[in-house]
Amino acid sequence: MSGDHYANLTILESFELYAAKSGEELVNEQLYHFVDRGERKVAIRPEMTPTLARLVAGKFMELPKPIRWFSIPNLWRYEKPQKGRLREHWQLNIDVLGGERSMADAETLLFAHELIRSFGGDSHLDMRINHRGLMDQFFGSLGLASDQAHLVTKAIDAKDKIGIEKFHKWLGDLGLGTAEISKIDSFFNEGFEVVAGKFAGPAVDEVKKLFERLDDLGLRGSYRFDPSIMRGLNYYTGTVFEIYDTHPDNRRAMFGGGRYDNLLGLFGKNQLSGVGFGMGDVTLEDFLRIHDLVPDLSAALDVWVGVPDRAHFKPAQDIARRLRAEGLSVGVSLDEAGFGIQIKQALKMGARYALLFGEEEWKNGKVVLKNLAKNEQLVVEASEAANVIQAKN
Amino acid sequence: MSGDHYANLTILESFELYAAKSGEELVNEQLYHFVDRGERKVAIRPEMTPTLARLVAGKFMELPKPIRWFSIPNLWRYEKPQKGRLREHWQLNIDVLGGERSMADAETLLFAHELIRSFGGDSHLDMRINHRGLMDQFFGSLGLASDQAHLVTKAIDAKDKIGIEKFHKWLGDLGLGTAEISKIDSFFNEGFEVVAGKFAGPAVDEVKKLFERLDDLGLRGSYRFDPSIMRGLNYYTGTVFEIYDTHPDNRRAMFGGGRYDNLLGLFGKNQLSGVGFGMGDVTLEDFLRIHDLVPDLSAALDVWVGVPDRAHFKPAQDIARRLRAEGLSVGVSLDEAGFGIQIKQALKMGARYALLFGEEEWKNGKVVLKNLAKNEQLVVEASEAANVIQAKN
Repeated sequence: MSGDHYANLTILESFELYAAKSGEELVNEQLYHFVDRGERKVAIRPEMTPTLARLVAGKFMELPKPIRWFSIPNLWRYEKPQKGRLREHWQLNIDVLGGERSMADAETLLFAHELIRSFGGDSHLDMRINHRGLMDQFFGSLGLASDQAHLVTKAIDAKDKIGIEKFHKWLGDLGLGTAEISKIDSFFNEGFEVVAGKFAGPAVDEVKKLFERLDDLGLRGSYRFDPSIMRGLNYYTGTVFEIYDTHPDNRRAMFGGGRYDNLLGLFGKNQLSGVGFGMGDVTLEDFLRIHDLVPDLSAALDVWVGVPDRAHFKPAQDIARRLRAEGLSVGVSLDEAGFGIQIKQALKMGARYALLFGEEEWKNGKVVLKNLAKNEQLVVEASEAANVIQAKN
Repeated sequence: MSGDHYANLTILESFELYAAKSGEELVNEQLYHFVDRGERKVAIRPEMTPTLARLVAGKFMELPKPIRWFSIPNLWRYEKPQKGRLREHWQLNIDVLGGERSMADAETLLFAHELIRSFGGDSHLDMRINHRGLMDQFFGSLGLASDQAHLVTKAIDAKDKIGIEKFHKWLGDLGLGTAEISKIDSFFNEGFEVVAGKFAGPAVDEVKKLFERLDDLGLRGSYRFDPSIMRGLNYYTGTVFEIYDTHPDNRRAMFGGGRYDNLLGLFGKNQLSGVGFGMGDVTLEDFLRIHDLVPDLSAALDVWVGVPDRAHFKPAQDIARRLRAEGLSVGVSLDEAGFGIQIKQALKMGARYALLFGEEEWKNGKVVLKNLAKNEQLVVEASEAANVIQAKN
């Protein structure tokens, strides 16, 4: 997904934006909202999709379709901090608007898979897919009104956490009889083939087509149908999915997303269906840690450049600039000192090399390069320093 | 300044953090603060330096010195949007803590200069430098108490905007007599040599040393002493500076910063002097626009990959992945269609090339590359596509 636009948007939105479509749990319990100094009710954005839809709707005509956007916003939820959930977190958002639906859905899931593959972790993924339209059909078959169906989805969302007994009691409390509860149980157990036979129609066709696409893309065995995936947000209308870590000690969804058909229409006269997901920084970090896949992000310097005296501050800065242009990570000393002190400083900074020179070396175009791990040093042409450091990488 | 740490910090801070040290104007008039759902008085950060100082103080022992940090936070001010001032803006922050003072000051200014040089705009810079310690000496010589001196700095800050007459009236209203006002006038007109002679001492020595360093670094002629530079923030104690655009239609400071000796001490027992600046996204954009230096940031695609049919969605995604690995910007079609429609789509997306294939090409390992500007096409080995596209860059 190159060639995409990076969307940088304000962190504050009107309270109403979320009240409209994000879902009651999010708004009532989790929205970080307040009254500003101008007496307006505002919220720090808890998610990016409504903002994205507003922005796309605003420049709809000038954007060639399909639109592929990503953003990495900081988001806020008002909740007690707990493992994997901080008040402020950063979230990668990927959205594709337009294009053939199953291709866009499949590409979005492929992107998530490849992202984790780039860390070497794709064998630990469990991609669970469902469809809101199919669930609407199923709830309709139970004779549930849409209000009641909505309450049932909350119970389904909680099912794995609370266990089957409490789940049944919850459904009973919502007014469902034994027959309906038993139908729900079998719906969750009979697998996609049986469900697809019972609820043949456009939603099932869409799921089938997506599964075929995923097979085409080599993802057979990486995904499964899971009717318990509901997603808490009200604006999803088609495919919904969550991607889990298979590790038993890390059971939170890392990715969550789905297809929204009607979100753009809230902000203008143009409709365009989109699909997208969010991936949180904390859940990704938990995943990488538990599988020991955290890349080396240490800020260790390749080389620390010493400054012998005032006259050689500029030469030191100049050589640092040239080394940086070669892609090296370089620090320059901010103290004038002899070789011994500069080497101590280079060690303290965790640099691999110390680059040192005095009047004598400099006027001959030479520098001293000291490999700090090996405790070896050699004198090289200043213009050769980058090559020596890179060769020994 | 490579090898630096990227500091990602929360956007919310306690109101008191700014009440303590950022200066009354900022807190009373410009702070975006509110009462949160837990009845705490909080603020969206209006600047980064106090947050940085808190963070550095918190891990003081484990950080090797000098500490060079950068961050690009989103910041908020509560004010009427006007040219160059939005409520939310992004700001590059560069800070150096520790090191010999004049070297760190000089490196910080050099970094600002090189940043603008990388856009080709360094000949349009006016670096204005002052010193808080020198100003304290000067105000002391006028017999001003520190409260009164603080009010005088507000008048000095406004001097260029309001003109000399209103400036004199303001000073008179603050209780200054003709003698003091006349001393202030000459102080602003007599240049650094004379001022340095009158107020010899550590502050003047520090400014002299910094100027020598800047000369050493080749910046003579790019900077000047300007006693009207005060900076609104109370925590500065040494060098203060602002960097202006020389263009007469763009008179706002692009960079502003200075040295703070006592900020870390607010958050722990360790003291460490630091120097840093902020550079706003909007003022940079104004500068680049007015000098016609905005780089080409168009998200144009190098190549648009067509998808002939369902069986070739994966080959299309695979070739896109390989082209991206070569550094190309690639989009894949999300519609299955023949060459004609794919070419139309590639044109609509603004791609330079369309990469097309059908069953026939693919089984022979070939693709069709169409140069859309020249309306020329050739058939190449799929593995050669990246080279062809890059060669014609």
